[in-house]
Amino acid sequence: MKVAIIIGSKSDADKLKNTTKALNEFGINYKAFVMSAHRIPEELTKTLIELENDGVEVIIAAAGLAAHLPGVIASKTILPVIGLPINAALDGLDSLLSIVQMPPSFPVATVGIDAGYNAGMLATEILAIKYPLLKEKLINYREQLKNKLINEKNIEI
Amino acid sequence: MKVAIIIGSKSDADKLKNTTKALNEFGINYKAFVMSAHRIPEELTKTLIELENDGVEVIIAAAGLAAHLPGVIASKTILPVIGLPINAALDGLDSLLSIVQMPPSFPVATVGIDAGYNAGMLATEILAIKYPLLKEKLINYREQLKNKLINEKNIEI
Amino acid sequence: MKVAIIIGSKSDADKLKNTTKALNEFGINYKAFVMSAHRIPEELTKTLIELENDGVEVIIAAAGLAAHLPGVIASKTILPVIGLPINAALDGLDSLLSIVQMPPSFPVATVGIDAGYNAGMLATEILAIKYPLLKEKLINYREQLKNKLINEKNIEI
Amino acid sequence: MKVAIIIGSKSDADKLKNTTKALNEFGINYKAFVMSAHRIPEELTKTLIELENDGVEVIIAAAGLAAHLPGVIASKTILPVIGLPINAALDGLDSLLSIVQMPPSFPVATVGIDAGYNAGMLATEILAIKYPLLKEKLINYREQLKNKLINEKNIEI
Amino acid sequence: MKVAIIIGSKSDADKLKNTTKALNEFGINYKAFVMSAHRIPEELTKTLIELENDGVEVIIAAAGLAAHLPGVIASKTILPVIGLPINAALDGLDSLLSIVQMPPSFPVATVGIDAGYNAGMLATEILAIKYPLLKEKLINYREQLKNKLINEKNIEI
Amino acid sequence: MKVAIIIGSKSDADKLKNTTKALNEFGINYKAFVMSAHRIPEELTKTLIELENDGVEVIIAAAGLAAHLPGVIASKTILPVIGLPINAALDGLDSLLSIVQMPPSFPVATVGIDAGYNAGMLATEILAIKYPLLKEKLINYREQLKNKLINEKNIEI
Amino acid sequence: MKVAIIIGSKSDADKLKNTTKALNEFGINYKAFVMSAHRIPEELTKTLIELENDGVEVIIAAAGLAAHLPGVIASKTILPVIGLPINAALDGLDSLLSIVQMPPSFPVATVGIDAGYNAGMLATEILAIKYPLLKEKLINYREQLKNKLINEKNIEI
Amino acid sequence: MKVAIIIGSKSDADKLKNTTKALNEFGINYKAFVMSAHRIPEELTKTLIELENDGVEVIIAAAGLAAHLPGVIASKTILPVIGLPINAALDGLDSLLSIVQMPPSFPVATVGIDAGYNAGMLATEILAIKYPLLKEKLINYREQLKNKLINEKNIEI
Repeated sequence: MKVAIIIGSKSDADKLKNTTKALNEFGINYKAFVMSAHRIPEELTKTLIELENDGVEVIIAAAGLAAHLPGVIASKTILPVIGLPINAALDGLDSLLSIVQMPPSFPVATVGIDAGYNAGMLATEILAIKYPLLKEKLINYREQLKNKLINEKNIEI
Repeated sequence: MKVAIIIGSKSDADKLKNTTKALNEFGINYKAFVMSAHRIPEELTKTLIELENDGVEVIIAAAGLAAHLPGVIASKTILPVIGLPINAALDGLDSLLSIVQMPPSFPVATVGIDAGYNAGMLATEILAIKYPLLKEKLINYREQLKNKLINEKNIEI
Repeated sequence: MKVAIIIGSKSDADKLKNTTKALNEFGINYKAFVMSAHRIPEELTKTLIELENDGVEVIIAAAGLAAHLPGVIASKTILPVIGLPINAALDGLDSLLSIVQMPPSFPVATVGIDAGYNAGMLATEILAIKYPLLKEKLINYREQLKNKLINEKNIEI
Repeated sequence: MKVAIIIGSKSDADKLKNTTKALNEFGINYKAFVMSAHRIPEELTKTLIELENDGVEVIIAAAGLAAHLPGVIASKTILPVIGLPINAALDGLDSLLSIVQMPPSFPVATVGIDAGYNAGMLATEILAIKYPLLKEKLINYREQLKNKLINEKNIEI
Repeated sequence: MKVAIIIGSKSDADKLKNTTKALNEFGINYKAFVMSAHRIPEELTKTLIELENDGVEVIIAAAGLAAHLPGVIASKTILPVIGLPINAALDGLDSLLSIVQMPPSFPVATVGIDAGYNAGMLATEILAIKYPLLKEKLINYREQLKNKLINEKNIEI
Repeated sequence: MKVAIIIGSKSDADKLKNTTKALNEFGINYKAFVMSAHRIPEELTKTLIELENDGVEVIIAAAGLAAHLPGVIASKTILPVIGLPINAALDGLDSLLSIVQMPPSFPVATVGIDAGYNAGMLATEILAIKYPLLKEKLINYREQLKNKLINEKNIEI
Repeated sequence: MKVAIIIGSKSDADKLKNTTKALNEFGINYKAFVMSAHRIPEELTKTLIELENDGVEVIIAAAGLAAHLPGVIASKTILPVIGLPINAALDGLDSLLSIVQMPPSFPVATVGIDAGYNAGMLATEILAIKYPLLKEKLINYREQLKNKLINEKNIEI
Repeated sequence: MKVAIIIGSKSDADKLKNTTKALNEFGINYKAFVMSAHRIPEELTKTLIELENDGVEVIIAAAGLAAHLPGVIASKTILPVIGLPINAALDGLDSLLSIVQMPPSFPVATVGIDAGYNAGMLATEILAIKYPLLKEKLINYREQLKNKLINEKNIEI
């Protein structure tokens, strides 16, 4: 297991389907948890230590509203934390700002609102700087994406 | 000491001057701390327990940017937490949304952007439901405010 | 009766269902009113005096659009006023700003947009500084919430 | 006296200088007051009745932040109320929305943020439907404005 | 006919139903037109002159998007122009700003987004400064509104 | 003269300095006017006809606040109209939306807030589809820009 | 073929239906492509050169979210590029700002959010400065539009 | 050299001073470039290939306005790209949205507006999953940060 996915609320799980789809495409093992930053902070701390011990190298954290989860995790680990803002109000602007505007020393690598697939892709790119096999897969992925798109470039409107 | 003021960064201290001014007007004892939610979470937890044991009944928490401090404190105590958004970017909108849009079960009693005086006033109103002397002082305060304003109601423009 | 709920328009009543749910969980008596700040200001003033005489200690006020109700109530009482912004236009941003950005001396303890449950929780936390039984209940509530969430922390996505 | 100007705080007086400039240009008598909607509501009610008895026909109300003053006045009189949003935070967006988004039955005739001159001009246009002399003056004003602008239409950049 | 209603596009007509409802309640005669500021500017100019000659005293102008219609009308007449922002994109914020932020000398009396009823109410209030019968009706309307609301002030939630 | 620059207010002239700088770089003749859409609409109409007769092929229109000028010009001519939003309030968002969100049939080619240089560049690109010499100049301009930038690509931070 | 339409994603095609409708009304030949700026940048470069060689004179580029496509195209050609922001999140505000706020030297002629018809109209106006027949058609189009609207100016609400 | 810093314009260099400060604290070699995505796209492509060959493993890209640079780089490399939004207009909201809202497959790891230090910290955290020495340094850094903050936690306001 290289990636842990932590969501703030069970109701956000659907928005992460594209995250696991991306990770599966690259054969990256992951495990998912519901771990509210506010509701069970000690459990969160404990679980993060276990995850690091289990070899997790990147954490994806998703939350909506005043989305503190990614930032709180970033303060409890030195692993890179990918923040995924979930749209639960205000078109997701509250969540985006709550995640991306972190104070100095505790960055969160933020992706777009409800952009679950990109959360998985970013985790893959980060892991690929260490694992050459992933790098190769990413290069192939891009190549195939390009070929597919070039073949479909003409469209009738 | 009935009120604890906790700010996320030393640089926010000036914005809290009006908070202590309000508390002083009502003779409410307070103590102030710099306690980043992200930087020293365990110290924050420990201090909150000490504060509760010392008889603190209301907490005022101020922060800017992705302002997690008030919400994180609200998750570690059952005392009422007053959140004061500090304008450090985006006119303070990021801070306001990061504080007010809390998920269910962990409310933060949010006041206006950079509204330090109102943070102190709200703490006073909350304490006044328990301490009759404060209630009296609040009634007098309002009376004096009114009289002063009625006398100054005419203006040349 | 310890809490009064005042809404600006009958059409907002549904958004307050979660407020009464929270208050009922803690056995807090409340009464609800429709009392527009603009439409019946004198009746509002009169009712507020009656409520204070009846022992109400916290007021929850909810309104949408240019939501003046919480602020107007805050100017007519020294009880703590919890403001609940209702989304009726602009994703509720108009209501949030109309409630939270109060001028000095008249704070409104603002919770999130359509966050009815948190309005009830905040009222409970405020009352708990006076009533030890409520404090105990809050501690139990948190304990149960944690246990439930810890048991459900694993999820398949 | 045909127009009353009511501002929420002495600090807003400068922003109203252009309002009185406009009214003076058309020879319209006015009187100005500082009358916070929240701080002295009963005085406000009393003064509005006096103003109506004194023949005031249009009210200009200016306020910043959660600007309730224009709407509260609109609920206490059937005279047309012109609302002038003052920029005190968030570029004045909080004030604009707090004034313009009034609930049904109590409109406020809102002008632009810090647009003091237009508040005076709108009062003039409203009074001109009753006073033919003002109508004439407005027609002349427009004529002169046009002539001045037509003469200055060429510019070097 | 005292009021002219001008809309920028046929598709906005439904949003004006509440405007005519308000005018009908007060027995105010009106006539409605579709008159795009951009598409038929000369026809608009011509019609405005006819309307003034026919005794129209207040104009209500509604438009969405980059809503120029109310401001363009305000530049072609000295009658008071009420601007009604229609939500056609961006929750109506584009329309609101395009109407309310008029440059000096040409105010538009702006009401809330999609607030058709208030457009009619504001027209009534403006006309009432000239027509004592309307003033009486407005006072009665308020009285009845109050009585109805006072009777319905209790609610179960 | 191929380009006319029309600004809504003399105070915006400075923001157009970069526009004329761009036009001068490409040897394009232009003439500038102050022509408020609201203040002198008939003069604007007359001038536009003269400009078309004089051979003007592109119009650049700049305005702030509720910026109707570009859209009003677009309704009076079939020439391409470039709209330049000027920041006079709300960081220029009001102006941007008032210009870009035009209703169907009357587009305005909008450039960035206070982006005077790009207004001039866009005029040049449009004219270049007709004048081969301009096309050549644009290609050279790009070439020189690239060479200059490639030489300066290394930087110490 | 005078116009090329390039969209960033197949899913945006429907929003361009009104663009081709406008171009067809004026008998302008066009061709459409799906050409992501990020996914197939080299193919985009190659295609743009081919399009220029084929005589394309105006490019319409549409994209949503962080909409880089119009700007990237503008950097690869000196033809005028019309940018059409597609609403895929945040009511399209992200797309609008990503397109219109271009840095100096590389303007994009931006039209309204989802304003496909205006993208086609703007292309027509630009081409009309070169092709007299298009100019004539535009004048007729306006004339017919006016006549149709004048006949429909009366409406019952 | 493990990190490349690429900025869109020389004028942004100052905002990156904190980025190099962070990298220097951890002894990470870097090199900085000015490489506009629009102005010299081919040079950018060429340089990115050279950088990958030179062993660069993380790229930090900073830009303001319609900030395409980070996203364009992300499409030309499979290395993780950290996007730093620079405030050049609209409080930096345009830049933030242009960077974070990337379409599927090409994520940009976005940090806060003008948050140069966090861009450097995130690069460090990403590299630390591969280089154990960096991991150790990060753990020490956090330890020292905590100790320093704990010693300074008391403050007088």
